[in-house]
Amino acid sequence: MKVHIIGIGLIGGSFALAIKLAFPEAEIYGSDADEENLQKAKELNIINHFSEPKDLQNADVVLIAVPVNAANKVISETLDLVGDETLVLDAGSTKSGLCKAITGHPKRRNFLAAHPIAGTEFSGPEAAIPNLFNNKTNIICEVEKTAFKLQERALEIFQRLGMRIRYMDPVSHDRHIAYVSHLSHISAFMLGKTVLDKEKNERDIFDLAGSGFASTVRLAKSSPAMWSPIFKENRENVLETLNEYINNLTHFKELIENEDFQEVYNEMERTNHIKSILNGIN
Amino acid sequence: MKVHIIGIGLIGGSFALAIKLAFPEAEIYGSDADEENLQKAKELNIINHFSEPKDLQNADVVLIAVPVNAANKVISETLDLVGDETLVLDAGSTKSGLCKAITGHPKRRNFLAAHPIAGTEFSGPEAAIPNLFNNKTNIICEVEKTAFKLQERALEIFQRLGMRIRYMDPVSHDRHIAYVSHLSHISAFMLGKTVLDKEKNERDIFDLAGSGFASTVRLAKSSPAMWSPIFKENRENVLETLNEYINNLTHFKELIENEDFQEVYNEMERTNHIKSILNGIN
Repeated sequence: MKVHIIGIGLIGGSFALAIKLAFPEAEIYGSDADEENLQKAKELNIINHFSEPKDLQNADVVLIAVPVNAANKVISETLDLVGDETLVLDAGSTKSGLCKAITGHPKRRNFLAAHPIAGTEFSGPEAAIPNLFNNKTNIICEVEKTAFKLQERALEIFQRLGMRIRYMDPVSHDRHIAYVSHLSHISAFMLGKTVLDKEKNERDIFDLAGSGFASTVRLAKSSPAMWSPIFKENRENVLETLNEYINNLTHFKELIENEDFQEVYNEMERTNHIKSILNGIN
Repeated sequence: MKVHIIGIGLIGGSFALAIKLAFPEAEIYGSDADEENLQKAKELNIINHFSEPKDLQNADVVLIAVPVNAANKVISETLDLVGDETLVLDAGSTKSGLCKAITGHPKRRNFLAAHPIAGTEFSGPEAAIPNLFNNKTNIICEVEKTAFKLQERALEIFQRLGMRIRYMDPVSHDRHIAYVSHLSHISAFMLGKTVLDKEKNERDIFDLAGSGFASTVRLAKSSPAMWSPIFKENRENVLETLNEYINNLTHFKELIENEDFQEVYNEMERTNHIKSILNGIN
């Protein structure tokens, strides 16, 4: 099996490592807009070969794992070059704009729109880990627009990688993912900023930070080059979630201002049942 | 060594387990306002005996680990009963009000005000873990007001438990800890509320949540009975941090509204250096 990976960072690199374990006979080809990343991926043995445009004709699978602002163009240009039997996958965090942009492409049936809910706050091929996708959810959009034989190939790959599949339309995907993923990142980035601004002259204050702060602010280590385009692409939904988050914080602040600590208690208690919902997520 | 623990939940229970490992000859006495908690602590072998007020006279160490709204009264009443050689410690998350309230007590020199920066989002004796304090910071306030011999006893205990000591005045403690601890909890609770409100009719949406959301919202599992009194006690500082957090979120929202994604990128990049600061916090 010839697998090409375009964009060999955390996601592309982890996919390469996972494929090698699940399909020992697979040959991995890689390309990246950043020459240094690409060389590193080769040195780390994450890829076997560099991927050239002319090789795409004979590829079995192409995974495109680039920032969402580049994805539409890269996916469209890749589809222009692949063979009739090639499966093209993406892994982007937004789906509406992409699905619309790609809808009329003559090779639309070669493409499967996917979003593996997997990642860490790190980036680049040196952050790749072979079991990143194991036990994670993979959201697939507009599955009916992909050729049946290529759907089957994709599902076999996802199954061997240990992923759960959820089917969803792209508009619902973008709305829900704004809540359960995009908002968490903004919440963490602004928490980090608030504390850094206050404590910039007292670096040793961070000695006082415990595991709770570290956990809540963890996502503020994430890559701006990845996240700025996501917020742009999913602007309307992100603004809605941010409005609601700010309103909730303002209401909580007013309860403290008014010394209504019974209601402060109630607000927290009502949210506590998130315990049961989060069971099973690591 | 006779160690009494008043309030045998996550913190008191973990202290008991850690003391048993570090001082195998220690006898642990426990009491708790909640009879069920106390019985559980006995069944789990976290304590050896129930602590009676008359036993406090002969105690070597008393740890008071109760919610901060009960602490002033419990600490004062405990000091009334202990012997001249007894060390009384607390472990509360706020320090200004307590240090002020206790300042004129005839046995003030028996008391050491401490705040171990350690905890989990769980509570009760069944959440106790023996290495909770290992490698954690312990903030000590107004050390000069504690008898020298009792300071030495406290330091030996903290050292055997593997803690780093930081000395700080109580007013600074409350201001800094509002940023690096109290704000994280509100940020997590309101993130949890925002997502639950939105997705209450679509529980399976949480299937889509990944490890990033779980990490950012983790503290929303914390105990309202512990946290509501902390926000009350540290009201002024908490309101200041909340104002700054809401302002930063509002500014970030406006950048997205105005489609200034270069500045969205810059904001995130400036916060990224929190990476280097968080090194070493687990």
